[in-house]
Amino acid sequence: MARRPRKHWGWGYADEEPSAADVAGAAPLVERQLGFPAQPAEEPVALDAAALRAPRELPPPPAGVPFDDGDHARATHAWGKSYLDVVRAFRGRFDHAPDAVVRPADEEDVFAVLEWATETGTVVVPYGGGTSVVGGVTPVVDGPVVSLDLGALDRVLEVDPVSRAARVQAGVLGPSLEDQLGEHDLTLRHFPQSFELSTLGGWIATRAGGHFATGPTHVDDLVEAVRAVTPTGAWESRRLPGSGAGPSPDRALIGSEGILGVVTEAWMRVRPRPEHRASRGVRFPSFALGAEAVRALAQSGLQPANCRLIDPAEAALMSGGDGEQALLVLGFESSDAPVEAELARGLELCVECGGTWDEGGERVGAWRDAFLRAPYLRDVLIALGVLSETFETAVTWDALPALHEAVLAAARDALADDRATVTCRLTHAYPDGAAPYFTVLAPARRGDEEAQWWAVKRAASEALLAHGGTITHHHAVGRDHRPWYDRQRPEPFAAALRAAKAAVDPAAILNPGVLVDP
Amino acid sequence: MARRPRKHWGWGYADEEPSAADVAGAAPLVERQLGFPAQPAEEPVALDAAALRAPRELPPPPAGVPFDDGDHARATHAWGKSYLDVVRAFRGRFDHAPDAVVRPADEEDVFAVLEWATETGTVVVPYGGGTSVVGGVTPVVDGPVVSLDLGALDRVLEVDPVSRAARVQAGVLGPSLEDQLGEHDLTLRHFPQSFELSTLGGWIATRAGGHFATGPTHVDDLVEAVRAVTPTGAWESRRLPGSGAGPSPDRALIGSEGILGVVTEAWMRVRPRPEHRASRGVRFPSFALGAEAVRALAQSGLQPANCRLIDPAEAALMSGGDGEQALLVLGFESSDAPVEAELARGLELCVECGGTWDEGGERVGAWRDAFLRAPYLRDVLIALGVLSETFETAVTWDALPALHEAVLAAARDALADDRATVTCRLTHAYPDGAAPYFTVLAPARRGDEEAQWWAVKRAASEALLAHGGTITHHHAVGRDHRPWYDRQRPEPFAAALRAAKAAVDPAAILNPGVLVDP
Repeated sequence: MARRPRKHWGWGYADEEPSAADVAGAAPLVERQLGFPAQPAEEPVALDAAALRAPRELPPPPAGVPFDDGDHARATHAWGKSYLDVVRAFRGRFDHAPDAVVRPADEEDVFAVLEWATETGTVVVPYGGGTSVVGGVTPVVDGPVVSLDLGALDRVLEVDPVSRAARVQAGVLGPSLEDQLGEHDLTLRHFPQSFELSTLGGWIATRAGGHFATGPTHVDDLVEAVRAVTPTGAWESRRLPGSGAGPSPDRALIGSEGILGVVTEAWMRVRPRPEHRASRGVRFPSFALGAEAVRALAQSGLQPANCRLIDPAEAALMSGGDGEQALLVLGFESSDAPVEAELARGLELCVECGGTWDEGGERVGAWRDAFLRAPYLRDVLIALGVLSETFETAVTWDALPALHEAVLAAARDALADDRATVTCRLTHAYPDGAAPYFTVLAPARRGDEEAQWWAVKRAASEALLAHGGTITHHHAVGRDHRPWYDRQRPEPFAAALRAAKAAVDPAAILNPGVLVDP
Repeated sequence: MARRPRKHWGWGYADEEPSAADVAGAAPLVERQLGFPAQPAEEPVALDAAALRAPRELPPPPAGVPFDDGDHARATHAWGKSYLDVVRAFRGRFDHAPDAVVRPADEEDVFAVLEWATETGTVVVPYGGGTSVVGGVTPVVDGPVVSLDLGALDRVLEVDPVSRAARVQAGVLGPSLEDQLGEHDLTLRHFPQSFELSTLGGWIATRAGGHFATGPTHVDDLVEAVRAVTPTGAWESRRLPGSGAGPSPDRALIGSEGILGVVTEAWMRVRPRPEHRASRGVRFPSFALGAEAVRALAQSGLQPANCRLIDPAEAALMSGGDGEQALLVLGFESSDAPVEAELARGLELCVECGGTWDEGGERVGAWRDAFLRAPYLRDVLIALGVLSETFETAVTWDALPALHEAVLAAARDALADDRATVTCRLTHAYPDGAAPYFTVLAPARRGDEEAQWWAVKRAASEALLAHGGTITHHHAVGRDHRPWYDRQRPEPFAAALRAAKAAVDPAAILNPGVLVDP
């Protein structure tokens, strides 16, 4: 089957490139929704006009493994999909294009590539869907480097309906995974915002967060067993529902961002599709009162599937709110039994915090469709000179109010532009804390986006760390979060991780610069 | 406060030593319950008659840190609490007594001890409550060795009622922890069978399993942050409800069984005491049908607090069953809302698998009390010449029936004694599998218990591994499970773990021989 080519600069496929007319048509919406005018529409630099240096000469590749050093392949593997990545690609900048893209047809090819790379000292950057927003797939290295694209390993290999588990290849994209599981009336129900273009292996390598607000939302909890190819052999765990045998080998690999091995397949915990759903949009007089309700919900043991609290400004922007009230999207689902009673109990908890709602449910599917379309919108905003970025964290409930205030203030100060909006929603809730997710929308300082972006990133990251948050709840570390990650993690753990990497990747070929220094 | 001295050979405190009359009185019960006669009652060898070699001379200890090389201290730190450990201590054998027991008064003392040990090459075995059943605290080393008893670090230091978390010192015993949390109307609700004599730090170091049958039952999920002292500095993670920043530093430490560092405190997720409870004892025509019901329950999303399936033979032994029917103890609890509806839905699932019950609930507390008293009973059985041992695993649902059959058969074959009983219960249930827990009761081959025990252990462990199980679901690895653990774990993970240990413990002083070889 022919690969559908990706857009060379932004989100989605080449055939989804927004036309000049699309962009022009969106310009008036910018002013109406954001309160500041769009800038004159810019066109992306065509790939054949882009600054793509010639590839370095690589040692003769292993026999039979497909290497591609064409411009399109190299350009689409040069960046991830952060705001800055898209801006740079839009302008035709591909500073860190790999020297070739390698597309293994099977796991044997992966072994062959790592052996070849170890022998020749060639750096390998594992690449799933390329949707990293933290520089996790950007080959920032001086010497020869290839991007290892797992896209051909895209099959569900085995389904165990009794244990509700499936053995899946790591390169499968979200929609194809759901289609293949659907043939067995099963689903993984893991919907990160990157779902359309990201892969199972990428989710595992980066500890992706799904759309579930409570319960098993990080992909960590959905992994029953995982198999990776390391430069020193296969790292494969047993299929186990639980174990107490030493530190979990799975948890050591999950979140290792390609520095220990290349995830090739995993046994994933799957489930039947939900048949019962109930949801409401609940309004609160303030974000703080809404957050109290979310805490009560998370501590109640109810485990709502959806429990997103959107602050008044973001609710106004996204869902036509009045700008005064916060909005909680509260939803329950089950494959087993009706959930109206859970919703009723959840709404009782909301009432105690001043929550009100209209009868008649929200359609959760509609919310999810809009959520998954957001990255397309960002491409248009970039063409219209709008900075559009998000950052996220998790923090305990006692520290949430101060962190929330501090991050909003830090981001606004760093933007130094009255027209900017910085908003917040809570995307995930735990009994002991929540994950706040901040969105920044501001006029881009054209040509100076990099400095503008880093100023906000630095200010927000410092505020997150100072107020007890993690540098990332589900966007991973990559290269962009390294300075704060290094301060956050325990130093003996960093030493242990460096030593572990050296043990399994003695030639230091796997994704150097990510998580640890070579 | 004076320490209440422990029994020098079995479970509990010195003042709980069973009298000769207690033992004699229990003898008729053995025949009635187990179907074979007790052997003549044996008396434990008194400590002053025991074979305890003189301690090796240790380098001068760090100033101010309490060292104790008295016989009682050394004997009680020589073994854990496996059947064989108790038998050997009962007979006055203390082959592996440490040269001294060190009792740090605070974390500074722990730092001082590890520094001293690193400089002098003295081995340190971290010791919580000493209830290991896998040789995890037994100082099997040739050179100078101390047992590091954390018992004085026994306080709840801080409570955050908003986030429902508490900062707790690692050496606290279960009952004291619950008492201290109770002052804040909170509870950890983590009740391993060793609860009375085991410590928070021990639970974390060994990935202990609590009494909850579903949901967060391994202590792993209850840890919000953890702090350990390593020979190269403090390993302390941030308090975070969730994070996606690299492989979890907590999960690397949890289950490390004292080879990476000494856990000194942790932030634990706590909760209000449950106010709502509902439970039933459900009978099934067979263990297999009961297991089908447990699977349905675990996959339903209901999350019962208690969901223990006891096979017909064990039900007859423990609860006066008829020997034909399996018994499911099914219970729900909540601090938030009534749980009768959950129980009703759970019972509906049981009906589909042939479950029946009498109206009127079981008192879960009564069940738990009996559960926690079991180790005392074992001491009496040992005096009466009864081999009494358990082993446990976890396996996916598809593989459970074959594993169940194979382990029963392997254990019975190895015992080669028609009078032996081997029974099974499911103690924990997951959507993708369950944790079967086997109990062996047989006439001990007196004087040859070691060979008899190892024959069963080896046979059962081989069967577990061959049929897809883990060598341990919640008893840890220690020294006893090493041969099977080494075959179970991925080899690159083993290399990573060895390297990680060498990085944080370069002098290899911490618990050598556990999990990895020095």
